[in-house]
Amino acid sequence: MKLIRTTSAMADWSRRLHREGVTIGFVPTMGALHEGHRALIRAARLACDAVVVSIFVNPTQFGPTEDLAKYPRQLRLDRALCAKEGVDAIFAPTAGAMYQPGFQTIVSVPTLARLWEGEARPHHFQGVATVVAKLLSLVQPDISWFGQKDFQQAALVRQLAKDLNLPGTLRVHPTVRERDGLALSSRNVYLSAQQREAAPVLYRALQAGAAAIRGGERRGAFIQRLMAHVVKTERSVTPEYLAVCDPSTLEPLQTIQRHAVLLGAVGLGTVRLLDNMPVTIRPKS
Amino acid sequence: MKLIRTTSAMADWSRRLHREGVTIGFVPTMGALHEGHRALIRAARLACDAVVVSIFVNPTQFGPTEDLAKYPRQLRLDRALCAKEGVDAIFAPTAGAMYQPGFQTIVSVPTLARLWEGEARPHHFQGVATVVAKLLSLVQPDISWFGQKDFQQAALVRQLAKDLNLPGTLRVHPTVRERDGLALSSRNVYLSAQQREAAPVLYRALQAGAAAIRGGERRGAFIQRLMAHVVKTERSVTPEYLAVCDPSTLEPLQTIQRHAVLLGAVGLGTVRLLDNMPVTIRPKS
Repeated sequence: MKLIRTTSAMADWSRRLHREGVTIGFVPTMGALHEGHRALIRAARLACDAVVVSIFVNPTQFGPTEDLAKYPRQLRLDRALCAKEGVDAIFAPTAGAMYQPGFQTIVSVPTLARLWEGEARPHHFQGVATVVAKLLSLVQPDISWFGQKDFQQAALVRQLAKDLNLPGTLRVHPTVRERDGLALSSRNVYLSAQQREAAPVLYRALQAGAAAIRGGERRGAFIQRLMAHVVKTERSVTPEYLAVCDPSTLEPLQTIQRHAVLLGAVGLGTVRLLDNMPVTIRPKS
Repeated sequence: MKLIRTTSAMADWSRRLHREGVTIGFVPTMGALHEGHRALIRAARLACDAVVVSIFVNPTQFGPTEDLAKYPRQLRLDRALCAKEGVDAIFAPTAGAMYQPGFQTIVSVPTLARLWEGEARPHHFQGVATVVAKLLSLVQPDISWFGQKDFQQAALVRQLAKDLNLPGTLRVHPTVRERDGLALSSRNVYLSAQQREAAPVLYRALQAGAAAIRGGERRGAFIQRLMAHVVKTERSVTPEYLAVCDPSTLEPLQTIQRHAVLLGAVGLGTVRLLDNMPVTIRPKS
């Protein structure tokens, strides 16, 4: 397994492989790899000849008061996991290699970035869009994988890649969960034992919303209140947003027609957790 | 010569050529090709195995009161010129192919876009940066050529391509001029006979500035006034900006050290003309 540290080496590696007719699967990550990432890597391994995993804690997608400094970094463990999964190359550039002196270009996806996480984290999606544009341009993947846990991020990256004609197709892989339903996230390590116990309430709230829809409920506002009600059963958990949205635009739905996604974010102390659940109403036959 | 109309056909063409080990030279244009473009195409022809010319009057780089509707369009003539110059493919997409429903991504290069043309044309460089990011991603050139006549645009594209790791290297080709010094531009066709006669005053102003620098003058403000003075000898020509700038940052220079670029824009009726002149002071030996 190759460890690539510079942008030019990354571009050269991909160019060489493409010349040989090798297809490249790409899994962009911030490291601290868990079973969710492993599922993306395995999907890439099955679909493409070669797999590259990027590990880059991108500073520009963190706000000034956020957890950039303490975000978990464990390159040695990550390398071991990648090696075991048959990854061909890890791209782990330094921040200085990605953002050279004079760097100033900004990529933004304004409509999708305005909502939900964008409201909570003002420059977050600009940072995400810019680094993803860079990574896709460098890696030149045939297929890239993103986790569904960050639903809005996946929607935004999909729009970005389409709008800028960035290389390859994009696949979103279902969220991997703990036994009690908590969505895997590198940030779960921040949770105290008590918070960890309370955290699955977000998943239960989404489940309750989805169950209500399957039971015939169609009013967005009602389902929203229902989910908030469930979250409030855990005193230590603060609902941030719990919304019933159009899965493409992420705009809130007044009435559910056919497709919806339930989006949720909650706070536990200083930790924020996200989760979501797509719902499709099957027409009666 | 192949005429490519869709983005997917463009991407496929490039992918196929790269797989065969063919190098691709790229000349992005808005059509209405003139000798300046021909010089870029010939440079591309010499340096690369295959040459693609894009012809796309990009709506997003025009302001609401600008000349989008009347911008000269002459695909038949352009095709003939390209065929004669041995171009391998013309990429001439429709606006609908480049900007599909739901399009929202914006690429901006804020520091360089703030100055000069950016001040005169508020969203112009956002449109340029976005379309160039798209084109470079679609065409995947080994080398791209831009004309030096649009000096700020070339500087901005260089920064953009570096910042986003867009494919290929970038070359800037010297401005091609009429016998009387007027820089070639597709917009010169807008000039009346009288305006055409007055137009070379911009070039003469830049020449006067450069001559003063060669003669030992180092004060930016003085050279600026000198250039404005020359432009004012033509009553029908309105100076818009005439500036002595750092060639990388395009910030005005108070005192010239080693490198400078003289940037100028003037108005003739409703027509705006740009020109520039890089100056390097050779140290005395």
